[in-house]
Amino acid sequence: MATTLFQDLDTVRYEGQDSKNELAYRWYDSDKVVLGKPLHEHLRFAVAYWHSLAMNGSDPFGAPTIHRPWMNRSDAMPAAKEKADAAFELFRVLDLPFYTFHDRDIAPEADDLRGSLKNFHEIVDYLAKKMESSKTELLWGTANLFSHPRFMAGAATNPDPDVFAYSATTVKHCMDATKLLGGDNYVLWGGREGYETLLNTDVGHEMDQAGRLLSLVVEYKHAIGFKGQILIEPKPKEPTAHQYDFDTATVFGFLKKYGLENEVKVNLEANHALLAGHTFEHEIAMAGAFGILGSLDVNRGDPLLGWDTDQFPNDLWDTTLAMYHVIQAGGLGKGGMNFDAKVRRQSFEPEDLVFAHVGAVDLCAQAFLKAADLIEGKDLSKLVDERYAGWKTPEAEAMLAGKVTLADIAKASEEKNLNPQPKSGKQERLENLVARKLY
Amino acid sequence: MATTLFQDLDTVRYEGQDSKNELAYRWYDSDKVVLGKPLHEHLRFAVAYWHSLAMNGSDPFGAPTIHRPWMNRSDAMPAAKEKADAAFELFRVLDLPFYTFHDRDIAPEADDLRGSLKNFHEIVDYLAKKMESSKTELLWGTANLFSHPRFMAGAATNPDPDVFAYSATTVKHCMDATKLLGGDNYVLWGGREGYETLLNTDVGHEMDQAGRLLSLVVEYKHAIGFKGQILIEPKPKEPTAHQYDFDTATVFGFLKKYGLENEVKVNLEANHALLAGHTFEHEIAMAGAFGILGSLDVNRGDPLLGWDTDQFPNDLWDTTLAMYHVIQAGGLGKGGMNFDAKVRRQSFEPEDLVFAHVGAVDLCAQAFLKAADLIEGKDLSKLVDERYAGWKTPEAEAMLAGKVTLADIAKASEEKNLNPQPKSGKQERLENLVARKLY
Amino acid sequence: MATTLFQDLDTVRYEGQDSKNELAYRWYDSDKVVLGKPLHEHLRFAVAYWHSLAMNGSDPFGAPTIHRPWMNRSDAMPAAKEKADAAFELFRVLDLPFYTFHDRDIAPEADDLRGSLKNFHEIVDYLAKKMESSKTELLWGTANLFSHPRFMAGAATNPDPDVFAYSATTVKHCMDATKLLGGDNYVLWGGREGYETLLNTDVGHEMDQAGRLLSLVVEYKHAIGFKGQILIEPKPKEPTAHQYDFDTATVFGFLKKYGLENEVKVNLEANHALLAGHTFEHEIAMAGAFGILGSLDVNRGDPLLGWDTDQFPNDLWDTTLAMYHVIQAGGLGKGGMNFDAKVRRQSFEPEDLVFAHVGAVDLCAQAFLKAADLIEGKDLSKLVDERYAGWKTPEAEAMLAGKVTLADIAKASEEKNLNPQPKSGKQERLENLVARKLY
Amino acid sequence: MATTLFQDLDTVRYEGQDSKNELAYRWYDSDKVVLGKPLHEHLRFAVAYWHSLAMNGSDPFGAPTIHRPWMNRSDAMPAAKEKADAAFELFRVLDLPFYTFHDRDIAPEADDLRGSLKNFHEIVDYLAKKMESSKTELLWGTANLFSHPRFMAGAATNPDPDVFAYSATTVKHCMDATKLLGGDNYVLWGGREGYETLLNTDVGHEMDQAGRLLSLVVEYKHAIGFKGQILIEPKPKEPTAHQYDFDTATVFGFLKKYGLENEVKVNLEANHALLAGHTFEHEIAMAGAFGILGSLDVNRGDPLLGWDTDQFPNDLWDTTLAMYHVIQAGGLGKGGMNFDAKVRRQSFEPEDLVFAHVGAVDLCAQAFLKAADLIEGKDLSKLVDERYAGWKTPEAEAMLAGKVTLADIAKASEEKNLNPQPKSGKQERLENLVARKLY
Ligand SMILES: [Co+2]
Ligand SMILES: [Co+2]
Ligand SMILES: [Co+2]
Ligand SMILES: [Co+2]
Ligand SMILES: [Co+2]
Ligand SMILES: [Co+2]
Ligand SMILES: [Co+2]
Ligand SMILES: [Co+2]
Repeated sequence: MATTLFQDLDTVRYEGQDSKNELAYRWYDSDKVVLGKPLHEHLRFAVAYWHSLAMNGSDPFGAPTIHRPWMNRSDAMPAAKEKADAAFELFRVLDLPFYTFHDRDIAPEADDLRGSLKNFHEIVDYLAKKMESSKTELLWGTANLFSHPRFMAGAATNPDPDVFAYSATTVKHCMDATKLLGGDNYVLWGGREGYETLLNTDVGHEMDQAGRLLSLVVEYKHAIGFKGQILIEPKPKEPTAHQYDFDTATVFGFLKKYGLENEVKVNLEANHALLAGHTFEHEIAMAGAFGILGSLDVNRGDPLLGWDTDQFPNDLWDTTLAMYHVIQAGGLGKGGMNFDAKVRRQSFEPEDLVFAHVGAVDLCAQAFLKAADLIEGKDLSKLVDERYAGWKTPEAEAMLAGKVTLADIAKASEEKNLNPQPKSGKQERLENLVARKLY
Repeated sequence: MATTLFQDLDTVRYEGQDSKNELAYRWYDSDKVVLGKPLHEHLRFAVAYWHSLAMNGSDPFGAPTIHRPWMNRSDAMPAAKEKADAAFELFRVLDLPFYTFHDRDIAPEADDLRGSLKNFHEIVDYLAKKMESSKTELLWGTANLFSHPRFMAGAATNPDPDVFAYSATTVKHCMDATKLLGGDNYVLWGGREGYETLLNTDVGHEMDQAGRLLSLVVEYKHAIGFKGQILIEPKPKEPTAHQYDFDTATVFGFLKKYGLENEVKVNLEANHALLAGHTFEHEIAMAGAFGILGSLDVNRGDPLLGWDTDQFPNDLWDTTLAMYHVIQAGGLGKGGMNFDAKVRRQSFEPEDLVFAHVGAVDLCAQAFLKAADLIEGKDLSKLVDERYAGWKTPEAEAMLAGKVTLADIAKASEEKNLNPQPKSGKQERLENLVARKLY
Repeated sequence: MATTLFQDLDTVRYEGQDSKNELAYRWYDSDKVVLGKPLHEHLRFAVAYWHSLAMNGSDPFGAPTIHRPWMNRSDAMPAAKEKADAAFELFRVLDLPFYTFHDRDIAPEADDLRGSLKNFHEIVDYLAKKMESSKTELLWGTANLFSHPRFMAGAATNPDPDVFAYSATTVKHCMDATKLLGGDNYVLWGGREGYETLLNTDVGHEMDQAGRLLSLVVEYKHAIGFKGQILIEPKPKEPTAHQYDFDTATVFGFLKKYGLENEVKVNLEANHALLAGHTFEHEIAMAGAFGILGSLDVNRGDPLLGWDTDQFPNDLWDTTLAMYHVIQAGGLGKGGMNFDAKVRRQSFEPEDLVFAHVGAVDLCAQAFLKAADLIEGKDLSKLVDERYAGWKTPEAEAMLAGKVTLADIAKASEEKNLNPQPKSGKQERLENLVARKLY
Repeated sequence: MATTLFQDLDTVRYEGQDSKNELAYRWYDSDKVVLGKPLHEHLRFAVAYWHSLAMNGSDPFGAPTIHRPWMNRSDAMPAAKEKADAAFELFRVLDLPFYTFHDRDIAPEADDLRGSLKNFHEIVDYLAKKMESSKTELLWGTANLFSHPRFMAGAATNPDPDVFAYSATTVKHCMDATKLLGGDNYVLWGGREGYETLLNTDVGHEMDQAGRLLSLVVEYKHAIGFKGQILIEPKPKEPTAHQYDFDTATVFGFLKKYGLENEVKVNLEANHALLAGHTFEHEIAMAGAFGILGSLDVNRGDPLLGWDTDQFPNDLWDTTLAMYHVIQAGGLGKGGMNFDAKVRRQSFEPEDLVFAHVGAVDLCAQAFLKAADLIEGKDLSKLVDERYAGWKTPEAEAMLAGKVTLADIAKASEEKNLNPQPKSGKQERLENLVARKLY
């Protein structure tokens, strides 16, 4: 294939904070060692195929504004290859270590199931070849089980068992492809796994269906020896009125219900946290506490808008707190930070994609460095440790460990005529400590 | 004690739908048999002591507007008895079978723990006597572990273990009192069990603390032979920024984490569902699917306002759907329908309390009758059953039961070259069916 | 043209409340006289061309699910005529007196401006002919100035004056067509008249641009002798982050700023009210108070979802209050009630469109009858009049009329040592009065 | 009076960015000249009497946590003087140039109107004396017309004209006091000027009442020769369900309706913007465009919580954009930046108040410096100017000035066969430019 869209763009390089180059990294010094590892091992950034290569800028009130050469070509498979060529050029320009995809991002639907699978594997092979000469690896693969009308009432949770079977089949092939391409994770996002109205829905039956698919996935993972993580990406609503994987806590309960809590982790997205009424750092901290933090979809939402804007992140405060809890949870392991973010509809030029990624990469790198600094300086943890210090006495430990009964505790408290006194939570002081580290 | 506030008000009676009496029930014919039981056994309405007897109409921007004789008296214990007298007069006026209370609603805080417990038990004894001559029984008791400043950073989840012990002691006595008064349930609401800022919080530690208190409660229940249900009331936020019992799904995960899912159920409140981004019927349906539906706090919120307005319900559509899912879940058992609702700040006259309850009681009764009618007529269920009928084939049942692998399913699907076709979800038609039943 | 989609469906007829026919009107007895006029003159229902004929069921995560014969035909103009034939069949089936359209709903965009205008007028002529043999008239016309990428940064408010000119030209032709077809109103909806980010926006300049277009429209209306109303449809956000016509109060200020408050009214949509944080009845009451109530887009949103779901309405409480304030405001005059509502994505069958309209028509008719009953019975107004009765004294009237100064009032109040006492707002009682009327 | 609460705290000083002193200013170098004036003249910071001296930490679910010596004293007037002493000590510690108050913050309600006015003027005189020896001046005064039950159904908008008169009387005295104390502004906040339910409300009548009070205020201002600004503080809801001064655009329409748009400006609060669904910079930019920007209440809300948390601000991005639009609008003139912010309920120590203000002052100072830098560097404005450059041609100017008709524009556009092409909005690039300036 001759030319690609990003071919003439220079590779973005780290130039340090004094650089005036708008298309250089000022913070993302990928080999810089912090907390014992180079930055790139902590962050494991990934470019999202769908948002960067497949999105066309349409919205519910408007037609596409982004017209890439491979869109609307009449020859779908050559178009898919042209798109792949452009993708790897973009990866080269951004100089990031990973990418992520849905089956439908990389290969076109055909007239029937067999044809669609054939298309998919042909492009997977094409990607495998491209990866041989690229530094960019696969963070994770996934299946698009929400766009086609057959999924309109759910994929695993469809009232029609044939749709379940169709979905399971698609997932099987996507897992095979992810393994073949050396992916580190396999993700499930349940865009249609929920309901539009309870009037026509049996939620118990549908959750059992979803639990079954996930069990099948876990068994298959072991059967084929896939060493990556299995991840669920929570999202509360949009496109449906309610999705069963609402947030981290909901997914944790779901995993416990089906006995999968040691097999499956979460891929957390900032904008999805927001739609569930949470901050990103909340979701990360909860996943840390439940032991199911897997990977991140880094982006941002607009708290004043009620849909998934999937914007590139730009707020240092929020992102630093997210990174802080990632470190607290022990890092992302095989997971990474996927830019599940799209340029605005009006930003239709190829260059806009690069601006967007450069800003986001730098923000996350800066945020991670600041968070590491907070961790190492114990600025916050000193005060937190003091706050919970009372629980370190033998009596308190025994109480927490369940070695005394409610009646025992009552007896002792009444004897002491307990009268605990409030202590200031020092929220403003702690916020100042963060602010001084950041700005 | 001489006179009480509601003494001159007549008992509200069922007069049927043609009644023009504003203070009569038009739908709540308590002995009417439907679905095999009298209405009062299905609904088990309760008056909430705090909202009806203890609320003074203050809000964050305004002073009390409601001045009852027992408020601001200098002699706290006689005042508490005057309040109890008024309470039982109100129960008599409303002619409802149950009431509910927090320790602090019925008895004043004293100077120290022992004094507060003494006050509490003295009033519990007073209530026990009053109940001898009243038809109104106790639906549930609970402890107020959120109002006093000692709980400002949590009760069970306080960084100070002495507050945990103080809380546990209080709960022990409230459980004793609930048992003594013949209560059918004991409820925990975690108003301060959460965080204001993650900057000073260890969520993992705090959830373990909450899990421990709940385990102690369950063990104590069995130790003392309390036959009622233990209930958690989910609420996502307010008063804190986040509470650990966000919604039903979160509580289910929490119960599973601490192995309590067979011991504890949920007390669901309509307004709390809304604050978590859910409908009331969603929460009820999810609790039904998880097998943890315990009881209801019936009220309504204002979806345009972001706080717990705790208004009396007035929408037949929403309430009917809630009742529908209660019936689908097998009813409330030992639970009931507690009016956790307060009159508006401007409705400071005693009569306003009666108007409010009469409207709410009638709404719920009407909604239950409509829901029972929908159930019996199978208007909705016929269409739902058809929708999932495909799962009744042996092949589909085997797939759902986990008797085939992902690879098996894929093989079969590819052989059949599966091509499932969409079927209309018929949402508008189903909505019309409900509308025609209601209006 | 041979067959159309709705041809075999019977015309929906009024059959009364006892009818078991799911496709009959139970409340919409169009000739029934209430408040001095037949129902159809009060309600003036309209079918929306775009939602009923042009929507394909796609959403941000999914492909079209609704495939009508005229969609995706390669011959755009014959397709537009087939669509028009189907439209008039649908109007015949629903037996409603009006329809509404955007230019782009009825006629395809061509390769250039002149071609698009030509297409448009050709179809307008085709509609004119169809209307000769139809009872359905045009409630209003409008221009789609938001779908095409040229409008991505606004139409009247575009930074590029050529887009302003293009938009003005389009509006001019749409006004001509609306006049030709006997339309009673011309509507402007500013979907892209706002901003995505303030970083690249000059809001003062853009509001002046919007004000200019509206002035041009008003002048042109008079120039051509169009006797209908000019209407703005407020909406706060979606598709942009902010639109300049946020809500009724904002539009009123905008009209005052450009001196257009006597020339332009509002077309209020229920779902848009919700997105602005208001109830539908609030918007109607405010428009009534400002004297700018023009017409209604009847639908409903989902308060738990943050986008314009445009669902068919089904709640009698909300709709009755909306109708109540319409009557209070003196009715809709040349306006009407347009079903700016779409069937759910899963409701792709033609029949679903009919179910949806039947339910909505009946709901509005029932709500209007209930509201008229409330008005005639003075159930609410008696209490409201009493509440404000104090303002009927000469002293109070003088004070409100500005005949005394602040110092005068202070002097008199201090002399009287004023001590006004609270009076109960009786909200619960009033809610009961409404409930008893409805259920 | 002997000791005050803040007496032992050192005055906070500017020590530069390298300071490790948690209680020093790192950015607020008050005499530093930027954009032609010292920082303190741009920022005009004010301490809010109510939040800093009068708040006790209660919330809807909890009792006071903050116990200052002057609270709950039995001798109200000496307590008010002790509070005033503490206030001026706090002003001394924070070293800020202004303060703000409501009548009820500084002086207690008495048994009747005359007594309350007497109390008020006695404390005003006390404050006047304290100001003689203090550098801190009065930014604005206001009346609390929302806390007392007499205002429960509104102050100016009360159905009872006696409450209107009572309110007018109070405002008259507060204006007198503000003038006496040399205040630069007089503010009205309409906490109860709205409705709880439309069922008992006549919104047209109530808006006329509000308009009348505001007209009286403006006339009285001129009558007494008060040279300050009259300001309205918009807020959409809380405490009522709807307030008539919802947001800037609504207030603008209200001012136009009553012919007051040249007499009254807005005092904008960040948290109130959020509750109305807007960003703070949006409200500032709109006020700038309407020519009614008066003053700021600087704080922040929590977009995940639906009430007025009034937190101290800590986000540099948001605050910089707010400052940017303040500068764009020509600055605040006689207005200033009032910290309408309260410490968290758990931050009950006097020191917490100082931490909170130090962080907020520094944030605003840094944000202002960054915004000034953006303005001076034209980083953003260069791109914005380019974007609107098309409007500088004579043809475009004529079109905007109304020198051509709709028909003229259409004719010309059709002759040119206009085909305007989209241009990238460059949002991500602009966000990067801001980020690089800030972090
Ligand atoms: Co994602
Ligand atoms: Co997303
Ligand atoms: Co409750
Ligand atoms: Co509640
Ligand atoms: Co509309
Ligand atoms: Co809409
Ligand atoms: Co304020
Ligand atoms: Co505020």
